Amino acid sequence: MRILGIDPGYALMGYGIIDKKGNRFSVCDYGSISTEAGAPMPHRLKFLYASLMDIIAEWQPQEAAIEELFYNTNAKTVINVGQARGVAVLACVNSGVEISEYTPLQIKQALTGYGRAEKKQVQQMVKALLSLEKVPKPDDTADALAVAVCHANSSPSACGMAACIERALEAEKKHSGSKRAKSAAGGNFRIIRG
Amino acid sequence: MRILGIDPGYALMGYGIIDKKGNRFSVCDYGSISTEAGAPMPHRLKFLYASLMDIIAEWQPQEAAIEELFYNTNAKTVINVGQARGVAVLACVNSGVEISEYTPLQIKQALTGYGRAEKKQVQQMVKALLSLEKVPKPDDTADALAVAVCHANSSPSACGMAACIERALEAEKKHSGSKRAKSAAGGNFRIIRG
Repeated sequence: MRILGIDPGYALMGYGIIDKKGNRFSVCDYGSISTEAGAPMPHRLKFLYASLMDIIAEWQPQEAAIEELFYNTNAKTVINVGQARGVAVLACVNSGVEISEYTPLQIKQALTGYGRAEKKQVQQMVKALLSLEKVPKPDDTADALAVAVCHANSSPSACGMAACIERALEAEKKHSGSKRAKSAAGGNFRIIRG
Repeated sequence: MRILGIDPGYALMGYGIIDKKGNRFSVCDYGSISTEAGAPMPHRLKFLYASLMDIIAEWQPQEAAIEELFYNTNAKTVINVGQARGVAVLACVNSGVEISEYTPLQIKQALTGYGRAEKKQVQQMVKALLSLEKVPKPDDTADALAVAVCHANSSPSACGMAACIERALEAEKKHSGSKRAKSAAGGNFRIIRG
């Protein structure tokens, strides 16, 4: 199973592509998409969308995962991150990739077994689980890999993941759930004219 | 000049297409795009984007206008409206249509000459300026037409608009400015890998 993890942002959007084979992970690609401060938002959104579409086309992930947004920043930021998140979700769905959402608590729980873990602990687990030489930078990139691992751990197809996590943690883990997108077939979607 | 006005929302997105010929307006199309409550957000965003792309392809507007978001609703709503707004902006920019933003104050000022006008006054002006038989429903549709008229009034290419507004208002109007998107050419947009 190949998974795309996304950490949404408009100035910097982290992404990570991981493979799960048996009960082991390997990393295909990770990084961040950056847009220029002061550039018009339409152009920033266009670049974020086009870049994610390219990454998806290149790596062909079967599933995607994205962090739910925090609400404790200022309102202007929340709206702009919301806009960036919207185009990231759209890139997945327009590429036929199902996307699941996870709260920060679910991600911490899945990676460290403790929902209130420090950011640093989560990053160390990303490094350990993915056999990386060092913690990926910037934080957005590590966060994107973390949500991808969280999804691998939470997915019904992720048999054997528990052993992998346990090996790395040497401790019992509780698996987190996901809000998985369901088919909209038969839904009430329409354009009302005039 | 043909203008697309958008009132962003995830449950209901209003749109309006207007033409300005000389100093008169005519309406090409208006309506709203609705998505089902409870449907997964990725599917709702996909439908909103695809519908707007279709509307743009059909009517070929030269420019677009969208309302800036309010911040005084609850945080969850703000994020979801932000996501919907993101895909609406993306539909315009991916179609090569420049999009401008206006605050509610600018829209009220442009339509009625008074930045703190009641919603009802703005709707009556939409009806009068566009020679409609009645105020368009739902409110999202009237709001989309209002931001389109505001843009026509604010655009440098909108010569003669003042006379049109004045005829309808029989009062002096102050014209509002816009935050027009500038070219991002030469901007610092990049993907940082690994």
